Parts: sequence; C-alpha cells; structure tokens
Amino acid sequence: MKITLEDIKKAESVVRPYIHHTLLEFSSSCTKAAGFDVLLKFENLQVTGSFKIRGAANKLSHLSEAEKKAGVIAASAGNHAQGVACMAQKLGMKAIIVMPEQSPLIKVVSTRRWGADVVLKGANYDEAYAYALELQKKQGYVFVHPYEDELIMAGQGTIALELYEDDPEIDTVYVAIGGGGLISGVATGLRALNPKVRVIGVQAAGADSMARSFKAKKVELVPQTVSTIADGIAVKKPSAVMYQEFISRLCDDVVTVTDDEIARAIVFLMERAKTVVEGAGAATLAAVMNHKSSIKSKKAAIILGGGNIDLNMVERIIDRGLQVAGRIAKIQLAAPDVPGTLNRLTSLVAEKKANILNINHSRVSDRIGLRETLIEFTLETTGPEQIAEIKKGFQALGLTVIE
Amino acid sequence: MKITLEDIKKAESVVRPYIHHTLLEFSSSCTKAAGFDVLLKFENLQVTGSFKIRGAANKLSHLSEAEKKAGVIAASAGNHAQGVACMAQKLGMKAIIVMPEQSPLIKVVSTRRWGADVVLKGANYDEAYAYALELQKKQGYVFVHPYEDELIMAGQGTIALELYEDDPEIDTVYVAIGGGGLISGVATGLRALNPKVRVIGVQAAGADSMARSFKAKKVELVPQTVSTIADGIAVKKPSAVMYQEFISRLCDDVVTVTDDEIARAIVFLMERAKTVVEGAGAATLAAVMNHKSSIKSKKAAIILGGGNIDLNMVERIIDRGLQVAGRIAKIQLAAPDVPGTLNRLTSLVAEKKANILNINHSRVSDRIGLRETLIEFTLETTGPEQIAEIKKGFQALGLTVIE
Repeated sequence: MKITLEDIKKAESVVRPYIHHTLLEFSSSCTKAAGFDVLLKFENLQVTGSFKIRGAANKLSHLSEAEKKAGVIAASAGNHAQGVACMAQKLGMKAIIVMPEQSPLIKVVSTRRWGADVVLKGANYDEAYAYALELQKKQGYVFVHPYEDELIMAGQGTIALELYEDDPEIDTVYVAIGGGGLISGVATGLRALNPKVRVIGVQAAGADSMARSFKAKKVELVPQTVSTIADGIAVKKPSAVMYQEFISRLCDDVVTVTDDEIARAIVFLMERAKTVVEGAGAATLAAVMNHKSSIKSKKAAIILGGGNIDLNMVERIIDRGLQVAGRIAKIQLAAPDVPGTLNRLTSLVAEKKANILNINHSRVSDRIGLRETLIEFTLETTGPEQIAEIKKGFQALGLTVIE
Repeated sequence: MKITLEDIKKAESVVRPYIHHTLLEFSSSCTKAAGFDVLLKFENLQVTGSFKIRGAANKLSHLSEAEKKAGVIAASAGNHAQGVACMAQKLGMKAIIVMPEQSPLIKVVSTRRWGADVVLKGANYDEAYAYALELQKKQGYVFVHPYEDELIMAGQGTIALELYEDDPEIDTVYVAIGGGGLISGVATGLRALNPKVRVIGVQAAGADSMARSFKAKKVELVPQTVSTIADGIAVKKPSAVMYQEFISRLCDDVVTVTDDEIARAIVFLMERAKTVVEGAGAATLAAVMNHKSSIKSKKAAIILGGGNIDLNMVERIIDRGLQVAGRIAKIQLAAPDVPGTLNRLTSLVAEKKANILNINHSRVSDRIGLRETLIEFTLETTGPEQIAEIKKGFQALGLTVIE
C-alpha cells in the first residue's frame, strides 16, 4: 500500500463539498504549558464531530455506480460509524453499521441520526467486525475499512493540506495513532510539502502496540487487552502493514500518554479553550503538555481529532482531571470519636479557604482505632499547595491523615 | 447616556489589537431545533472567555496618562473581572479586583493569572462593590463600571460590526441582558447598520427585572433575590437609566428562560456543537430552542456571550440533563434488612444491563419500617424504558419502590 501527495490533492477536490476546512488556532495557554508555539487543529468541530468523515467522503465518492447501489457496511462503535453513515446519506446510499451490543446509546442514536441501519451484534469490536464481514459476503455490500485503505488514508491526509495552507511554518505535528490511517495520510501530505516537518505519533499507554514496535524497531503487534479512556484509538489488533508501510517510515517519534494525562488534557481544553474533545482527540495535547517527546519544536500543530465523548464519561473525566490537578482533593482522616471533632475540622477547612463538596463519616473501618472515626473529605481546592497545607493543618490538630 | 454607531466604530479601531473577531457559524442542529436559520456567535472563544474584554479594552485605552498611572479598580466575581485584569496587564496598569469572599476559586485563580490584585471582601456582590468604591476614593484608582459607562457599551457594541460584516442578512439577534451593557451596544450598532433588525433580549427567570419592566412598559426594577445558574446575568440591582435609555428603546422583545432550559441548552451545545458555554451565554439559545419570542425570524444570530463556567457546575448540569433524559436514574427502595438482599438487587440490575454508579444504604429514615433498610441506587441507564423495567423487576422481588 502506498499513497502520495497527488492522491491527497485528488481526495481534497473530491471531499471539499462535504467537509469543513477546520479552524487552526494559536493557543496561548497551551503554548505556555508546552514551552513552544502550539496551534490547535479543531477536528472536533468537523462534520460528524471527527476527522473520520474525510476518509469516508473520499472512499464513498470513489465507488462505482454498481457499488453505490449495493450500499456500504462498516463495523465501528465510534467516529468511523458516523463518518460512513453521514456520507452514505449525502450520496444517497444505504449504510449498515454493525456495533457491539454494549455500545453506548448515544453512539447508536448519533449514527441512526444519519439514516444508517444500525445492527447491534457481538460482545466486542472483533465480533462486530466479523459479523460485518459475514453480512458483507452474504448481501454484497461494500466493506469500508476504517484505516487499511488507500482512499481512506488519502482522505484523512487532506488535513495536511489545510495545515500547510494555514501556516507553512509548522515544523512539527502531533497526531494520535489508533489504526494508523490518520497519521499515514497527514504525514505523507505534510512531508511532501515540507520535508523538514517532524511527525510525532501519540498512543494511549493502554493500547500502545505501535509505540512499542517503533521503540523496538520491529513489529510488536501482539493483540492486547486494551484499556484506555481514549476509545477512538483503542485498537486491539493493530495492522502489521500499517506499521511497516507507514508508521515506521513516516514517524520521527511515537510516544504514549496515560489516561490521567489524557483526562487532564480534556479538562484543560474545556476550561481554557472552551472546547469539548474526546480522549483520542486530547491524547496529542497530553503528549505536548507532558513533554513526552525529546524532539524540539518551534511551532507545533496539535490535531484534536474528535469531540464525540459520552457526557457520563465527561463527568468522570472532570472529576479525575480536577483530582489530578489538585483542584479536588479526597482526604481521609482518623479522628477521635468525640463531639466537636468535625466542627474543628470544618473550621480548619474554612480557614484555609477550601470548599467542602462532600463528607463521609464512618466508624466501621480496620484502618482506625476503636475510639476513632474515619472521616473522608472531598474538597474543592486551588492546587497541590493548598491540599498540602490543609493536611498539615489536620496533623497539627493531632489527627492521622491516612490518605 | 447615549452611544452612536460612530462611537462603536471608534471603539473598534481601538480594541482590534486586543480582541478576536470571533467565529459566526451556521448551526444545523440549532436550526433544526429553532425552525429558522441560526448562526452562533462564539464569544465564549473570545480572549478571557467572554465578550467583556471588548468593553474593558475600550475603556482602559481611553484613560489619561495620570489615570493609567493611578491604576483601575473593579468589583466583579466574573467576566468583567477577567476583562479588566487582562487589559490592565496588556496596557501596563495596576488592577485591583474586589470579589465577594465566597467567589469560586476558579474565578479568583483566572483573574490572578492576568496579574490583577484580587481582594476578597464582602458577603455578596453589593458589599464587594461598596468596598471597591471605598478603596477607589481612598487610593485614587479609576473605577470601571461593568455596564453603566458609554465607553464600555461602545466596546461591547463592536460585536455588531462583526455580525454585520460576516452576514448582513441577519434579521434578528438574541442577546442576554444582565446589566444591559452588551445589548445596548449591540442593538445600537446593528440598528444603525440595518434599521430592520429585531433585537430580542433574554433574561434568566430568576433575575428578570428588565423583562418585567419591558412587559409593564415602565421601570420595575425592585431589587430581588436573584437565583439562577446564569451567574453572568444575575444582576440584583438593575439600573433604571439602562432600562430607560437603552432597553426600552432598543429591544423588540425581552423574554425569560428557566434554569432547566438553560441547563439543557448547555448540554446541547456540549454534545452537538462541542463547545463549552456558561449559563449566561447559553440563555439566548435556550430562548430560541423553547420558542420564547413570538417574533418571526428567517436568520437569527445567537450571541453565546461567555464560556467561563466552573467545571463543578458543568458536572451538576450534565447530571441534571442526563436525569431529565433518563440516562441517569435514582431509585429509592425499602428492602428487608436481611443478609443477601443487596445481592439480589445488584444481580437484577446486572441482568437488566444497567451500570451502578452509587449505592446508599441507610437504616435511619422515617420512610421505612423498623425491619427495613432504605437503599438508594444511582444507575447509568439507556432511557426511561430501561428504568421502568428495573423498577418493575424490583417490585417483582417484593420490594417497595419509594421513588
């Protein structure tokens, strides 16, 4: 498999009517955190809420009349599903999307909104994928692979043209790697336009085959139990072809970020850039904020790949992100079980100007003495310094801070 | 007091270096909900996260050298604080911001980030305001009023120039009213550019003096106990001058929205537009989505005034939104207080494929018998049907569903 700048330019002329040229904007808050100029590419504001529409638009536009009549099928519980469904609707084709049975309702609803036929089948993505292939053979649909497809990759690569047009001085680009379709397209395009550009791939630590392969300089694509909040890049069975033909040749570095780092990046983007980005989309910023690559940059573009995040997940991430940043603190104390104790504690908290969100008070715990009570505070705080001060205050009152 | 299009044009030339010309974008999801074309004006993406920087930039730029040397003072726990602080830093002036003692930490931190001297004083805005005036007299600072100031209003009015430049066919504009500075500027500018434009003011139902006055066609500005999640427009003592000179003359309608309507608009913007908007900023969209005005429109611009919302508040709003949609359920049960009960309940929940978020278990309640225990489940659910099924299941197990 191979794609060229020409393929991407052709894709561009085909997909332009269907997609936004998304905003590329300098972010002073990210620049401060990174130590070099950071430009954010808002693919979360793309049609369907992610870059996946670019590849789907290119692929579906290239189908023959007979194929268009037959309709398309894809397996996905995420952005690929919406990209394919949206484009099928726009081109007047039938679309069948197979999703795992446990898929979040919001994803099912969003995909159906584009008129697709959603089939819930299988306990996980692999089973849904297998079923989609089965259906495809039986019914003669066209199967649309999420990344191992030259037209899909060229479609995603149109991002490179926009980046170069908006700011030719970009010297580094951070791109998330799931299957590898996005980075293959973007790297091919940008490298052809400016051979000096460095491409840094970002994976979630819980789904890091490509990063491990890159480090080992050979394919290490053992299927793994993926575990990350960045479901958009949680690929269980990565493709050796994608590694050999693209990732290994085009990337200057491939780094990983933890879920905590991703959560913090999501919170940062909500608070400072007022924008909603999903885990896979915020992983790139997490890599920059945590200085994961040793490659130096003057002006980096950070692709925020998508914004389709379940609000239940947003709640948990806000919680986690605020905790990691020291803006919410959970403090467990063993306190003497006598009247007035809680009052002394709350007045200390008030004096230190923290806000109490919740108090749990329990006598049943093996972590405390028989005359003690276990108190857990959840506090709204300004940062780690304030938390340390409050803990010190509790200790000065003669209490044991357990955690 | 009076401002003209000329004042606004002058303001424009002064503030341009300091502010963004913010995005005006057609929203297909809002258009579908409204029934007419909706363009969103993203002032939540403005420098400092709200439109307030426009007025502050104009005001502070017009100070004399002596005044600049003296420094500025303002009372605010919100966007005005950040606007003044940011501009003072950019123009090399000292800024003192007086905030009520109970102000959310995030607002204090954000204001300090711009180098301002934050003084926490008073139990509420009025007390902070009084203290700011006192300090101003003592120290000779320049007091910057949030809206009752021609330069401030002309600054906010620069939004009108951007709206008209980006789409001269806008026939209606929805603007939130707190003190009235924003709508005075925008209405003056737009009306002068296109006399046919209709201006619809939006207030929170819990802080609706201007709406009541508009309806009564006379000043009804009794100070009220304001209560709304839209803290940016929760003005306790509205100004008669602002009503008489501007609101009454420039508005075609003034409508109100409830906190639940605002909360749903915030959730809608997060899920569909991937953007974070505060209560005061989402009130305009809430008015459109709930068809609050009888004025017909073909193409309306909705100003999303700001995005500075506390993430703790976002969590609560998401919670509320998800509960209303049946995606989170709280179920209270009276259960026999014997071993094994909870186990039977959790296995039922698992069988119905709901996800347990929290369980509260208590023996102290007057709503249950002496041999019973009160159990409250918080579940993540797919919708009202699933919740009804789970409740039916509990009842089939012989339990009393209290709520």
